[in-house]
Amino acid sequence: MSEIFNRIKCPEDIKKFDDEQLNQLADFLRDKIVKTISKTGGHLASSLGTVEITIALHYIFNSPHDKIIWDVGHQCYSHKLLTGRIEEFPTIRKYDGLSGFTKRYESCHDPFGAGHSSTSISAALGFARARDHLKEDYEVIAIIGDGAMTGGMAFEAMNNAGHLKSDLIVVLNDNEMSIAKNVGALAKHLSHLRMEPHFVKLKDSFRSIIKQIPRIGTTMLKKAEEIEEHLTYLVIPGVLFESLGFTYLGPFDGHDIKLLNQTFKRAKNIKGPKLIHLITQKGKGYEPAEKDATKWHGAIPFDIQTGNGTTPLDRDIPQYSDVFCDTLIKLAEEDERIIAITAAMPDGTGLKPFQDKFPDRIYDVGIAEQHAVTFSAGLAAAGMRPCAAIYSTFLQRAFDQVFHDVCLQNLPVVFALDRGGIVGEDGPTHHGLYDLSFLRAIPGIIIMAPKDENELQSMFKSAFDYNCPVAIRYPRGKGVGVRMDPPEEWETLPIGRAEVLHPGFDLAILAVGNMVYPSILAAEKLNNYGIRAYVVNMRFIKPLDKEIVVKLARETKHLVTAEENTLSGGFGSAVLEALTEAEIRDCLVQTIGLPDMFIEHGNMNVLREKYGLTSDGIVNVVKKSMQLAK
Amino acid sequence: MSEIFNRIKCPEDIKKFDDEQLNQLADFLRDKIVKTISKTGGHLASSLGTVEITIALHYIFNSPHDKIIWDVGHQCYSHKLLTGRIEEFPTIRKYDGLSGFTKRYESCHDPFGAGHSSTSISAALGFARARDHLKEDYEVIAIIGDGAMTGGMAFEAMNNAGHLKSDLIVVLNDNEMSIAKNVGALAKHLSHLRMEPHFVKLKDSFRSIIKQIPRIGTTMLKKAEEIEEHLTYLVIPGVLFESLGFTYLGPFDGHDIKLLNQTFKRAKNIKGPKLIHLITQKGKGYEPAEKDATKWHGAIPFDIQTGNGTTPLDRDIPQYSDVFCDTLIKLAEEDERIIAITAAMPDGTGLKPFQDKFPDRIYDVGIAEQHAVTFSAGLAAAGMRPCAAIYSTFLQRAFDQVFHDVCLQNLPVVFALDRGGIVGEDGPTHHGLYDLSFLRAIPGIIIMAPKDENELQSMFKSAFDYNCPVAIRYPRGKGVGVRMDPPEEWETLPIGRAEVLHPGFDLAILAVGNMVYPSILAAEKLNNYGIRAYVVNMRFIKPLDKEIVVKLARETKHLVTAEENTLSGGFGSAVLEALTEAEIRDCLVQTIGLPDMFIEHGNMNVLREKYGLTSDGIVNVVKKSMQLAK
Repeated sequence: MSEIFNRIKCPEDIKKFDDEQLNQLADFLRDKIVKTISKTGGHLASSLGTVEITIALHYIFNSPHDKIIWDVGHQCYSHKLLTGRIEEFPTIRKYDGLSGFTKRYESCHDPFGAGHSSTSISAALGFARARDHLKEDYEVIAIIGDGAMTGGMAFEAMNNAGHLKSDLIVVLNDNEMSIAKNVGALAKHLSHLRMEPHFVKLKDSFRSIIKQIPRIGTTMLKKAEEIEEHLTYLVIPGVLFESLGFTYLGPFDGHDIKLLNQTFKRAKNIKGPKLIHLITQKGKGYEPAEKDATKWHGAIPFDIQTGNGTTPLDRDIPQYSDVFCDTLIKLAEEDERIIAITAAMPDGTGLKPFQDKFPDRIYDVGIAEQHAVTFSAGLAAAGMRPCAAIYSTFLQRAFDQVFHDVCLQNLPVVFALDRGGIVGEDGPTHHGLYDLSFLRAIPGIIIMAPKDENELQSMFKSAFDYNCPVAIRYPRGKGVGVRMDPPEEWETLPIGRAEVLHPGFDLAILAVGNMVYPSILAAEKLNNYGIRAYVVNMRFIKPLDKEIVVKLARETKHLVTAEENTLSGGFGSAVLEALTEAEIRDCLVQTIGLPDMFIEHGNMNVLREKYGLTSDGIVNVVKKSMQLAK
Repeated sequence: MSEIFNRIKCPEDIKKFDDEQLNQLADFLRDKIVKTISKTGGHLASSLGTVEITIALHYIFNSPHDKIIWDVGHQCYSHKLLTGRIEEFPTIRKYDGLSGFTKRYESCHDPFGAGHSSTSISAALGFARARDHLKEDYEVIAIIGDGAMTGGMAFEAMNNAGHLKSDLIVVLNDNEMSIAKNVGALAKHLSHLRMEPHFVKLKDSFRSIIKQIPRIGTTMLKKAEEIEEHLTYLVIPGVLFESLGFTYLGPFDGHDIKLLNQTFKRAKNIKGPKLIHLITQKGKGYEPAEKDATKWHGAIPFDIQTGNGTTPLDRDIPQYSDVFCDTLIKLAEEDERIIAITAAMPDGTGLKPFQDKFPDRIYDVGIAEQHAVTFSAGLAAAGMRPCAAIYSTFLQRAFDQVFHDVCLQNLPVVFALDRGGIVGEDGPTHHGLYDLSFLRAIPGIIIMAPKDENELQSMFKSAFDYNCPVAIRYPRGKGVGVRMDPPEEWETLPIGRAEVLHPGFDLAILAVGNMVYPSILAAEKLNNYGIRAYVVNMRFIKPLDKEIVVKLARETKHLVTAEENTLSGGFGSAVLEALTEAEIRDCLVQTIGLPDMFIEHGNMNVLREKYGLTSDGIVNVVKKSMQLAK
């Protein structure tokens, strides 16, 4: 069979399969996914959970004519395998290879790309209404996880869809997980449903009870009918979705292809918006992932037999996320007001040990960055010292809340912005390349970036000391491997003060965050050409150390700025603004950072090399300006 | 009585009042609000709707000990009057006067400020949890409108609050309106509740029916009990809120002070999160506002008797919003794919005539900017040409959606960004001073700003021609009063090309949007000093016309940039970036825009004067650089 399966070029090819073959196809896809991801790494657990749903969707619907829209997109590996991407599949998440998410440019079977959560119903409703306007005839299906359903925009879309009444199928892929264990009242509602599939039966029982009542009076009958009418409306599972205007179907076993086929067929015949509630298991079919879906959400390359990682971990150098968590624990031990907030990422942000140590002092609010930020603002206004740990890319979701609720009210919320800069394999949806620009626009926020994991500690200590809005932005992955100061040596850094790390004469390299060490190396290399470059660890993107910028501009007349952020409005622009304000004209400034374009996915170092965010990149820029021979 | 009422210094003062006096107080407050707002203008209808709720809140709870958190804050005039701000009330919304919203810096009775919608439950939950952590003892009450409830973050907060089970009161102020007529499935659910207050009675009837059944068998009794258990859970009003973990109370008449007092007292004794559903009438007590609450949402000064505006409207000069709508109608007549999307602002954005003309081609999605943008992206991906009309300040809510769903996929969504720049009396929460910075960080978007209402027309025509993401940013209020070209003369502007409006020699003023005309005037004034200044209407903030920037920098060696946006990362920075890229050093650049601080409320012209965003402001900057005598 696997030979036939390997030749699947498009979903059409599976339509002739019988039930048995479809089940074999599921095994084949699982095997393919586990084997490939064991080599490349990737979103394993979620993609293993949706194998049967994907098969049934492509069996019943006609992609690309019908529009299948995956939320987040990290569960779409089977979808890629069934839509002509089987040969390229081993390139997934690699530079120049397939994206780890759905992507419009990659396939006509991806009508709407994703990466961030909770967007699929909005997009699907857009397709559904466009279809109606243009008098076309196709089905629109959004597949969304129970975790993504906690994102407010999914609710906004449901509210709108329930009102508009267009034909639309929402498949709720309920694995009782978002990325971590799911939280919130909605999760409780869903688990209630999972436990009560006999609700429908109950309604029937009620009817029969009424019918069995002997010698029933007219009034009572009328009353009973009245009650029954409301029961029809209310005593059914999924009342929450029904009350938003959706027809609710489920809950059903999301791994039973035959049942799924029947259900999807049935849904096609129901008018208006439908919600199909499917119960699935994250990691299904691969035992280690079944047992610990959170660990296997984003897998690194692993040995299939043991489940152990095959990439040797450099355990001597800690991850930034881990240093952040250690630091927060130590600070929280000293100050009871310090608490942590995460939006469904206790693991990703490194907060797990904090959660273990202070289970009452951490809030996982679900995939709900907007609420996470304003909730933090409320906590701060009421006397707590919240630390909101949110990936740089996901803070984009709460830009207005950072502005309106935190900064405008000058509330002391500390933002731990993990994954600032290039994130690698997750690519353009996930790179944290815009935070310095969009945060810098907001008055009253302090923005810091540590040169290494040791400085991260002092920055967090400082942030809580400053007593105002602070964002600390640090890179994905491991630190530099420096000596770590014990807590008693952590400093409160003077606000807006940079540190000079390397003496110079001819020029000054002003660097932020993880560009500091490459800058030092660059200065050393430039020394070989007789060029003496200052290296400054700016520490603060805002407020900027204008004094040192102006001083070095006057002294060297040549500044090079280095940041892992877009050049549009980033740190380099802050330096240009400072020079303009000081009316300095005769200074050459070269800005190093990301160009104004979306940055593709690929290994972090490959991308850094490509965009010149290395010591050699800096050397080349300087040499170019000095018109030296190569 | 009114003498006593006029002396109210704090909520304590009303606690000795009897029912009769509380009702008289309501009349007094209404009278005060109508009289004051008839002179100052302001959010009349919403504040008239919450008079009794405010009185009851302050009668039952103890502010500032108990925390009363108003959503949006535009309905809080009674609250201001009862919390020691009665004397300053006539200064409301004026420069240096009271804010039109709740504001932490203004009063200890405003524990959390607002301006934007849907934040109150998140903030209140923050207070509630902080109280629990710090072992304090106070009540937390969020008051939120049914419109604000459609915002996704309110749902995120309800989901989290229902899960955490902290004591918290949410007052749902249901006036069947957000700012315009409310929409969405939630609205339907609420209206269902309003029509069915006998649900509770029904449950009781059911019990009595069961009890009356003669000779009931054991099985049937058991069945009946089972059903009743679920009925307790389900057959109650507000099932949507109950399913999110809230205890639902209501619906009640929100204008009956006695009933409100009882209800609030009752709610204090219920553990966990409670939702009190109150029905109110927007504009209550002032007939013109009762009749047309939308018109009276934001009132201009008016004659109390007639309801007519007292500020003479300059009808010859159209509002930007109106020109936008006229333009969109004309373009939509030519292209059936063009549709409009608004987030609860069909009136504010000027789209009402479009709605009247094309009722099937406009979507009001509720106060849900995130969904509005991704829904637009979906529509665009499916072949439509959506125009999302969202105030600059509210687009902050959908920054990530503009990035992730529209621009990353290069989808042709046109953003009509009304209220770009200073908005005046609404103040810091509402100024549109950050859009050029945060949008400029996003690759692939075209950002334009018209110099006048005529150019606005060509820009919208161009935007639909470009077939990619485009934002057109224009100011609040009326245009310049120029001659309007008929549609056949509308141009498709060459992308990224500026126009020189005034010849020069000594320097060049590069201006965007509404700074273009003041720049021309400035150039004329500078002529009197013998200074010859180019004036360039940049038209495009992105992509920038680098060619003209570089050319004029080389030629004049003195550029002045002018924009009504923060200087942090705005248009001026874009110019600096372009000069840096071109390695131009010997050019003096002066940037005019808003400083890096929150800008207060006040008359638009007062603020423009203060921050030098006038022709004289420009002249002064130039003169300073030229070291001319004044």
